[in-house]
Amino acid sequence: MIYLDNAATTKPTEKVIAHCESILRDDFYNPSALYYPAIQVKTEIEEARKAVAEKLKCTSNEIVFTSGATEANNWAINCGFKNKKGNIIISEGEHPSVFEPAMALKGKGADVRIAPLCKNGTIDCDKLFGLIDENTSLISIMHVSNETGAVNPVAEIAKRAKQINKKIIFHSDGVQAFCKIPTDIGPSAIDLYSISAHKIGGLKGVGALYIADNINIASMILGGGQEKRLRSGTENVMGILTFKDAVEDFNDASVKPLFEYAIDCLSKIDKVKVNSFMENSGGYIISAGIYGVKSEVLQHLLNDDGVLVGLGSACSSKVKKSRVLEAMNVDKAYIDGNIRISFCPQNTLEEVQAAMNIIASNVQKLRSKING
Amino acid sequence: MIYLDNAATTKPTEKVIAHCESILRDDFYNPSALYYPAIQVKTEIEEARKAVAEKLKCTSNEIVFTSGATEANNWAINCGFKNKKGNIIISEGEHPSVFEPAMALKGKGADVRIAPLCKNGTIDCDKLFGLIDENTSLISIMHVSNETGAVNPVAEIAKRAKQINKKIIFHSDGVQAFCKIPTDIGPSAIDLYSISAHKIGGLKGVGALYIADNINIASMILGGGQEKRLRSGTENVMGILTFKDAVEDFNDASVKPLFEYAIDCLSKIDKVKVNSFMENSGGYIISAGIYGVKSEVLQHLLNDDGVLVGLGSACSSKVKKSRVLEAMNVDKAYIDGNIRISFCPQNTLEEVQAAMNIIASNVQKLRSKING
Repeated sequence: MIYLDNAATTKPTEKVIAHCESILRDDFYNPSALYYPAIQVKTEIEEARKAVAEKLKCTSNEIVFTSGATEANNWAINCGFKNKKGNIIISEGEHPSVFEPAMALKGKGADVRIAPLCKNGTIDCDKLFGLIDENTSLISIMHVSNETGAVNPVAEIAKRAKQINKKIIFHSDGVQAFCKIPTDIGPSAIDLYSISAHKIGGLKGVGALYIADNINIASMILGGGQEKRLRSGTENVMGILTFKDAVEDFNDASVKPLFEYAIDCLSKIDKVKVNSFMENSGGYIISAGIYGVKSEVLQHLLNDDGVLVGLGSACSSKVKKSRVLEAMNVDKAYIDGNIRISFCPQNTLEEVQAAMNIIASNVQKLRSKING
Repeated sequence: MIYLDNAATTKPTEKVIAHCESILRDDFYNPSALYYPAIQVKTEIEEARKAVAEKLKCTSNEIVFTSGATEANNWAINCGFKNKKGNIIISEGEHPSVFEPAMALKGKGADVRIAPLCKNGTIDCDKLFGLIDENTSLISIMHVSNETGAVNPVAEIAKRAKQINKKIIFHSDGVQAFCKIPTDIGPSAIDLYSISAHKIGGLKGVGALYIADNINIASMILGGGQEKRLRSGTENVMGILTFKDAVEDFNDASVKPLFEYAIDCLSKIDKVKVNSFMENSGGYIISAGIYGVKSEVLQHLLNDDGVLVGLGSACSSKVKKSRVLEAMNVDKAYIDGNIRISFCPQNTLEEVQAAMNIIASNVQKLRSKING
């Protein structure tokens, strides 16, 4: 199988797999216990926290491990918005784990404002800044789009937003950015930043929320007092310890040739609209609309030929239309035929070459069937 | 090492460890994706759900996987209590993941009522029923105490509570009960029931909340719509799939001889107060107060001699005093010297015999130091 749906989840790295077995056998202790083997596990958790913090250019005490980025995003949206008289701003491009909690707040009467997208998939910054007023309490803008790979300059946006209203809490969903593009979050004006392990070769079920030192937010989950009393529950030890491996292993330089090659191939197919652009993309995600084909049908044909690609966001695969592509004003006929190709550092150029041939021939096959 | 702190966490079983590697290599796909290998993972998640449901004598659609029991307990307490005019009832014996969210609601003005414990560690049922009135919206009573192993007849308590007020939502924290004593939750009057995988040989970072079919509670986490839209976030696939292995592997018949042997040995040591009783215990947990010794010092000496035991609840190990033992009216001198010994089916009688000799000799050593 040629696996090109890495934005949905990545295959764990060999280092992660090897480490898992040793953790299961030797580091299974509860980190809250006070005997030496448990204290050792606790120490290793702190080393993992340090590795994550270094990648975000922040301090370890600003990292709180969660069960994943969806939890971190929910936490940020709900706890960042305490003042019911205020308003919050998100964008049309946000992942459902930001969009849905914001809509739930709206359902309870909150003033939720939604910034539109530009045609290239990035946030329309001018319109975003126009939505800010003195009552804006929270802004949440994703760093890299999970559907198109479009990159928003979130550090710059946060800085400018706070020039308008310095009391704003600025959150960014960094899931598709972390380890893939520079994430110097610590020194920036960003207050909250969500990341996930399983998008970079770590395990599912673990992520983190960066909480800037000067920000006080309510605890996500109460109980035994783990994670500085902010997120209780026995730690997902294996998930956290291998998060460190995944961060250290990740080689962000290796996918650009794959991206360029694939974009070149897709552009040569007749009536294909590529929604991802090198100039504003980390190079990990390609969104391409193929006119006249149904993406689900193409996906299954490709699966039969040994190539796995995504359809927009895997997390909302049951939703037929794409809110994000619609916000980019992509024609419906291209949305219906939209596939997402996404890379990880382990993908090879040979794999991508083979996949592109298989995609081109299946598109031709499907179109000739429809026309014939 | 002789590991006797299984109530804090258990060592993963060999079946779980072997399955983890195959999941990491072959079942790493995102279960929300629509190609065949991902659909296969989704199918395996449903099989795990069925295995958990069978153990609770409920239907699969009543099981929602969470990041652990702490999340499930928080969810139950917060979402079970929607009517701010009502009151909720918990007990003095509850785990911090029930107690702390209840106290947080109290801090926001909720009427939180706390039922006391009997001397044997079970809930004082008469006093509990006396706290119920027509405005009681939620009752949360743990099934088995994580500190003493005391078993509460929660199905019977739920039934009687609903005879007083039929609108009550009844939650029980079943973490230390699941797989260890009969948990016929489906047919009972219990509405919500929390369980955890890592207490029965599964992984940390996964648990579940049983939600009876007729109960509507708000979603815990919003986003991609996983877990019937009740708990979004990419599933902890490895945690969920091995939850099934752990449930199937667990042999609940094997610890009773260990419990009886250990109780017998501890009772022979001068001035030891055993707070766990066979007639109301699943046999997995022994709480024993040893007069005249500091439990932390004893724990470290035992650690040096190759025996690992707990101190009350590992989850609240930073809290010096024990709310639960105090509620049982245990003398402070015995609380200071309290250790928790807890078993799993893999423990052998030979291990327990060796551990009991090491405990007895270290108690003697400590006492002679103090007296000498």
